[in-house]
Amino acid sequence: MPIPPITLTPPFNVVRCAYIDLGVTDLDAAQDFYDSTLGLVTTTRDPDAIYLRALEERNHHSFALRKADVATCNALGFRVATPGDLEVAYDWFNNGGLDADFVERPYQGRTLRAQDPNGSVLEFFCKMDQADRLLQKYGTYRGVHPQRIDHFNCFSPNVQTSVDFYADLGFRTTEYTDTDDGTELWAAWMHRKGTVHDIAFTNGVGPRLHHVALWVPTALNVIHLCDVMATTGYLAHMERGPGRHGISNAFFLYVRDPDGHRIELYASDYLTVDPDLEPIRWSLTDTQRQTLWGTPAPRSWFEEGSVFPGVAVRDPDLKAEPVIAH
Amino acid sequence: MPIPPITLTPPFNVVRCAYIDLGVTDLDAAQDFYDSTLGLVTTTRDPDAIYLRALEERNHHSFALRKADVATCNALGFRVATPGDLEVAYDWFNNGGLDADFVERPYQGRTLRAQDPNGSVLEFFCKMDQADRLLQKYGTYRGVHPQRIDHFNCFSPNVQTSVDFYADLGFRTTEYTDTDDGTELWAAWMHRKGTVHDIAFTNGVGPRLHHVALWVPTALNVIHLCDVMATTGYLAHMERGPGRHGISNAFFLYVRDPDGHRIELYASDYLTVDPDLEPIRWSLTDTQRQTLWGTPAPRSWFEEGSVFPGVAVRDPDLKAEPVIAH
Amino acid sequence: MPIPPITLTPPFNVVRCAYIDLGVTDLDAAQDFYDSTLGLVTTTRDPDAIYLRALEERNHHSFALRKADVATCNALGFRVATPGDLEVAYDWFNNGGLDADFVERPYQGRTLRAQDPNGSVLEFFCKMDQADRLLQKYGTYRGVHPQRIDHFNCFSPNVQTSVDFYADLGFRTTEYTDTDDGTELWAAWMHRKGTVHDIAFTNGVGPRLHHVALWVPTALNVIHLCDVMATTGYLAHMERGPGRHGISNAFFLYVRDPDGHRIELYASDYLTVDPDLEPIRWSLTDTQRQTLWGTPAPRSWFEEGSVFPGVAVRDPDLKAEPVIAH
Amino acid sequence: MPIPPITLTPPFNVVRCAYIDLGVTDLDAAQDFYDSTLGLVTTTRDPDAIYLRALEERNHHSFALRKADVATCNALGFRVATPGDLEVAYDWFNNGGLDADFVERPYQGRTLRAQDPNGSVLEFFCKMDQADRLLQKYGTYRGVHPQRIDHFNCFSPNVQTSVDFYADLGFRTTEYTDTDDGTELWAAWMHRKGTVHDIAFTNGVGPRLHHVALWVPTALNVIHLCDVMATTGYLAHMERGPGRHGISNAFFLYVRDPDGHRIELYASDYLTVDPDLEPIRWSLTDTQRQTLWGTPAPRSWFEEGSVFPGVAVRDPDLKAEPVIAH
Repeated sequence: MPIPPITLTPPFNVVRCAYIDLGVTDLDAAQDFYDSTLGLVTTTRDPDAIYLRALEERNHHSFALRKADVATCNALGFRVATPGDLEVAYDWFNNGGLDADFVERPYQGRTLRAQDPNGSVLEFFCKMDQADRLLQKYGTYRGVHPQRIDHFNCFSPNVQTSVDFYADLGFRTTEYTDTDDGTELWAAWMHRKGTVHDIAFTNGVGPRLHHVALWVPTALNVIHLCDVMATTGYLAHMERGPGRHGISNAFFLYVRDPDGHRIELYASDYLTVDPDLEPIRWSLTDTQRQTLWGTPAPRSWFEEGSVFPGVAVRDPDLKAEPVIAH
Repeated sequence: MPIPPITLTPPFNVVRCAYIDLGVTDLDAAQDFYDSTLGLVTTTRDPDAIYLRALEERNHHSFALRKADVATCNALGFRVATPGDLEVAYDWFNNGGLDADFVERPYQGRTLRAQDPNGSVLEFFCKMDQADRLLQKYGTYRGVHPQRIDHFNCFSPNVQTSVDFYADLGFRTTEYTDTDDGTELWAAWMHRKGTVHDIAFTNGVGPRLHHVALWVPTALNVIHLCDVMATTGYLAHMERGPGRHGISNAFFLYVRDPDGHRIELYASDYLTVDPDLEPIRWSLTDTQRQTLWGTPAPRSWFEEGSVFPGVAVRDPDLKAEPVIAH
Repeated sequence: MPIPPITLTPPFNVVRCAYIDLGVTDLDAAQDFYDSTLGLVTTTRDPDAIYLRALEERNHHSFALRKADVATCNALGFRVATPGDLEVAYDWFNNGGLDADFVERPYQGRTLRAQDPNGSVLEFFCKMDQADRLLQKYGTYRGVHPQRIDHFNCFSPNVQTSVDFYADLGFRTTEYTDTDDGTELWAAWMHRKGTVHDIAFTNGVGPRLHHVALWVPTALNVIHLCDVMATTGYLAHMERGPGRHGISNAFFLYVRDPDGHRIELYASDYLTVDPDLEPIRWSLTDTQRQTLWGTPAPRSWFEEGSVFPGVAVRDPDLKAEPVIAH
Repeated sequence: MPIPPITLTPPFNVVRCAYIDLGVTDLDAAQDFYDSTLGLVTTTRDPDAIYLRALEERNHHSFALRKADVATCNALGFRVATPGDLEVAYDWFNNGGLDADFVERPYQGRTLRAQDPNGSVLEFFCKMDQADRLLQKYGTYRGVHPQRIDHFNCFSPNVQTSVDFYADLGFRTTEYTDTDDGTELWAAWMHRKGTVHDIAFTNGVGPRLHHVALWVPTALNVIHLCDVMATTGYLAHMERGPGRHGISNAFFLYVRDPDGHRIELYASDYLTVDPDLEPIRWSLTDTQRQTLWGTPAPRSWFEEGSVFPGVAVRDPDLKAEPVIAH
């Protein structure tokens, strides 16, 4: 059983995944996609960045899109509970031999930038400027009615290493895939906030961001987005779905932004706050784990992702042969 | 049994209800309501009128809103099959002692304006300018996603007279309410186009328009409109619903435009093309006919309506006592 | 322009597509599929046949499933307006050199069995036993909440021949596909009842039934059916979808019954009663006509269909090369 | 500001609201309502009790219905994180002068029964027998597709006392109503699990349970339940809704079980895990807090509730006049 035991007393208190920081090559194109099409709301547009939030969010942003020469995932942002947690985190990373240092980020408080053992870039913060809550300003609803950021999904060159590390930080595994002989962990979904996940890892060339997900209220919102994208010039940006994952039971759609960053629109979820909730195991040979309804994903979905700037990627440490239903 | 037999060979061929012509006192206010809020699309705005259509419609307009000093229902517009039908209709009305004459209406062909025996003002036409079909231009969808005009509902001072007249014109009754002794017809729903109705009549001070209905795809669109109206200054314009009618099985919401004209947002329906489809009878004492779920309608819903300009209204010819669940 | 002009005065009055008669090899398996899974309601089960209806239907059946040694499509059933129409139809077919004769069918009145020029087997009737209307017996709703039979779709070895024949019978074309040079009609959707179609034809080995469709209220009912089928042993029966057709704008799912007969679950539609409604043309090279969202259909969907018993099939008469996005 | 500060280190760790224990007078009637109609699944039926769970729940039960002579709310059940929490809780209640003792409950581990300062009866447990997870056994879905227990709502004779007590236990207030002068707390919504609430309090004769809520996926499931209840003998059990609360933004329906216990079907919610999430204040004079769309609640909704057995109720300690929109 490759899933580590629950840690009820992590070294510091990560509350949830809170923002994604992406490098995009064209701010106007990005705004048309994220704001006018998906329906995120632009809180602030600076000369070099756009900050957007979803409809229930009061934080200044859950999407920070920065002008860049090449498309990158700059950081995965996590909220911690208290300012003291940042101090503890600084020590914990550095004592563990992992780089971590404080950086300045606009519109948010002191921010610790660090890397996990596989090289993924993380940012931890405790305070952020607040913005109007739009949940009951229904006149502003557009697109897919995105309600909040839900999770990150990453390619990991060694899923076991990733899971062990985040388990130490108090992330609990809710679902996972392994080989039939139980010797190799293939993918895992881990949470802090009481849903299926804040972060997930899949074997692959990494570290890279596979996708960031927005939670949306119903499948009908996702279907409407399909109709909108297919008839407003975004047909080629629709990569996979809509469909139902076996894992997480999510109703999903995967789309690609103008730079190729992958966004999941994610409807439904379940509550995972019970500390002894048994992780659900899926066999690597069960194709319904990927798509409950049987439709295979395209090859791009298994292969393409967003790199962290300056972080080298490597092939996964696999003993088993990949079993992927293209 | 007060429902007349089916007429398979009407004097002329009415295809369907096709437009409503309303007098409104403030064109800007009307456009904010019908276009920005409900989601109809403005085809043309002239100095004195706005013409709108719903998303699947290719006709230039299904809503003609004309600047007026007082709010009125100017006409109920019906499409006929051929130009020849207009000629036959002219004779039929005039031979029957009912006023009818040809009038000019912008953006549509020759138009016959007539009155039914209770004084309701009708317009018949065969040709209309065509506009872009927006059904697959999903980027233009807003509001409640109104797909087409569905029906008119009128207060009639004598429902039996109304039903007999429209039955002669080939309208078939799909559902009706009468007194338990079967001696008095209270309300009736009649169609030409193969749905529950193109026009309905209820006992009341008339002739007046009770409401015009827009067909919308799902109940979720209606619920979203409730949320939008309740938070954009239109709370007082939400009169009744959402709910389910027993009669017609429609999921409904009734709203009032800035002049008080009543609009129904109407989801679901059923097919009624079989010529021997038995009309469904509802007892006047069965309150589920009005609201399947039991919630009563407000008094305004039973009492208020839009007058036809220059047409006197009168009390209904009732033998039975009204049984209305306020 | 290969679409024939509208016939407002057809030789006899076909009201709508009304039932499908299928040969199935295992009545128990068929009942589990159509009744327990899709949610059709069994009106009568005889030793050799099951008769089912959808939720709004008052006719005894829209699906007649008869025990057979091999899976076949026995007939496409159409309702006509009056008994006199059957007499006229008998003469019209026979005078036109097409076989047609009266047959006995349980639970329905006098029935004329005929073949169209390509050999498809048709049955025309005017009266059928009536059954309880279940539309407001919500406690009986199951599965996909199928509300009514909507249309037949057939492989035709010569679509132009099919369209010309049905146009003579008063069917109007609402949408069609042809080659870019306009010389060859590839597929056509034709109606009598005021929706997108009662019957459609696609080039292919025929005559064969491609599918019969059930109209369902919303996309969410279709998504729920996907979830149910994928987890109750019917995963391999899910052939295509859910998705959106460009043609007809339908939200669709295609499933196969235990004998391989194809059923479409079909949500949304639009009104087509205006006699001068312009048919919508789609280019054979526009893949969005098949799937607005871009996902290709599997090969089986283009190749497999249900034969009519004793009717030979032949290759289509094609000048152009097939352009099929598998 | 009557809302107490956040307690990040409560005396013991309450994870979430987990079950309701109700006394019902007729087990068969209760099972028809909760299981056959709402769609909860019966895990076990004993001679004197029925235990049911919702579709995502793996705990043996979230609804325990026990045969009783009169309808009562026997207990509000809360999950704690560890067995040690139960020991700490025992001491904490007893040291605080509140009754608390261990009791035996079938199908669950050691259970601490206690009373809060207003007399509400609470049960705390850490372990429960596990049952099959039905979330992906879609063939078992029925009724409203209830996914999990969401919250309790209670009449409190002194809301300030209730809020202070539960704040000490680590419950955070997400929304509240007070008088315009800010001197009197009228109602409050408090959570542990990261949603709008695990428990809420409203001024009223108490302590009594106002309702227990089930989370359901979409508004369409709620609408379908309305249709089912209205046509299967449960019309009189539909008390309020469907509608949208201003507070919590929930889409709601309130129904009454055969004993009069009130159940809320509750769709939508928002994430509340950030420890500094500002509580949303509603004015007692803002009627949209109760119903965003304006429809008033019936008098019964403000007055009727379920008593705890043997616990005396008293009038609320109010300085302000009640402002209730009947």
